[in-house]
Amino acid sequence: MKQSLGAKPLVYPTPVFVVGTYDAQNRPNVMTAAWGGIGCSRPLSVAVSLRQTTLSYGNLIARKAFTISIPSEAHVKAVDYIGMTSGRDGDKFAAAKLTPVRSSLVDAPYVQEFPLVIECKLAQTIELGSHTLFVGEVVDVKVEESARLGAHGTADIKQIRPLLFMPDTQAYYGLGIFIARAFSVGEKI
Amino acid sequence: MKQSLGAKPLVYPTPVFVVGTYDAQNRPNVMTAAWGGIGCSRPLSVAVSLRQTTLSYGNLIARKAFTISIPSEAHVKAVDYIGMTSGRDGDKFAAAKLTPVRSSLVDAPYVQEFPLVIECKLAQTIELGSHTLFVGEVVDVKVEESARLGAHGTADIKQIRPLLFMPDTQAYYGLGIFIARAFSVGEKI
Repeated sequence: MKQSLGAKPLVYPTPVFVVGTYDAQNRPNVMTAAWGGIGCSRPLSVAVSLRQTTLSYGNLIARKAFTISIPSEAHVKAVDYIGMTSGRDGDKFAAAKLTPVRSSLVDAPYVQEFPLVIECKLAQTIELGSHTLFVGEVVDVKVEESARLGAHGTADIKQIRPLLFMPDTQAYYGLGIFIARAFSVGEKI
Repeated sequence: MKQSLGAKPLVYPTPVFVVGTYDAQNRPNVMTAAWGGIGCSRPLSVAVSLRQTTLSYGNLIARKAFTISIPSEAHVKAVDYIGMTSGRDGDKFAAAKLTPVRSSLVDAPYVQEFPLVIECKLAQTIELGSHTLFVGEVVDVKVEESARLGAHGTADIKQIRPLLFMPDTQAYYGLGIFIARAFSVGEKI
């Protein structure tokens, strides 16, 4: 029997995206966002939603580019700090002891210490209410050498160890175990 | 040192959403989608992207409503089957031994056996390329009684045991362990 909980953000899992942008003075900024995901396969695009009051919102509108750096479990303190503070109050990179790297492909910085980076140029801006959904076309994905899976030219999820965010209980979780191969296990039905 | 992998769908984690819709003959259909997430807090909205060739795409355009049923690890075979087949070729609910339940709030069915259900009315339709991004305003969230966390009026993630999908390696993973409290652990910086 199912019970009604009302319109609550009970969606599992949500990601932990660290969105990188430059402000009008070319200062790098980062914010933590959990409202987002992949939006399209061709062109490969990600969607991420930001509140209009954030510094990153204005940066993204002006520069038409952003990065998403995916943190590991080990970065949880920095990620949470980045999510609690505004770049208007100081340099979040410096406070969290993170290093901004200027993307050579899009007009935005990424986080050197995080293992996976998605570089995007802004494709669409859609007003949804409290949040604006930004669709970014993925120009490149970069992975830390130590987290690369050589044979597949992909990332090793066990090295990445991405964080998950539980919106309702406001908790970070880690990645669990391998369950099954997709487009395969269902063939048994 | 970071290495370029090109524009690949390396975004972690992506969710496993089972999207429920009715077709023109009121037949319930489900499909598996991993391109999606929360889109907005007020009004609370989810975003999910579907290919235009899917049966669900037409259903959603016509009925302007959908549900997202969140499966548990135990449902991985059914979920993968639903992702590999089309409702045009037969009744996926019947084949996967799942039970459609008509939502009393939106014009769409959900999966009785899955622990968490998000009921949405279509708010916006955005063409992105190979996929169309549907923004659904969340009308209600329903949780299976056994997976409810009573004190908080929320869902117990350890009972839900949601699946995660790794797009590049096409694998399902489970949820890992609790890492830290959000809006809290970062205060140490």
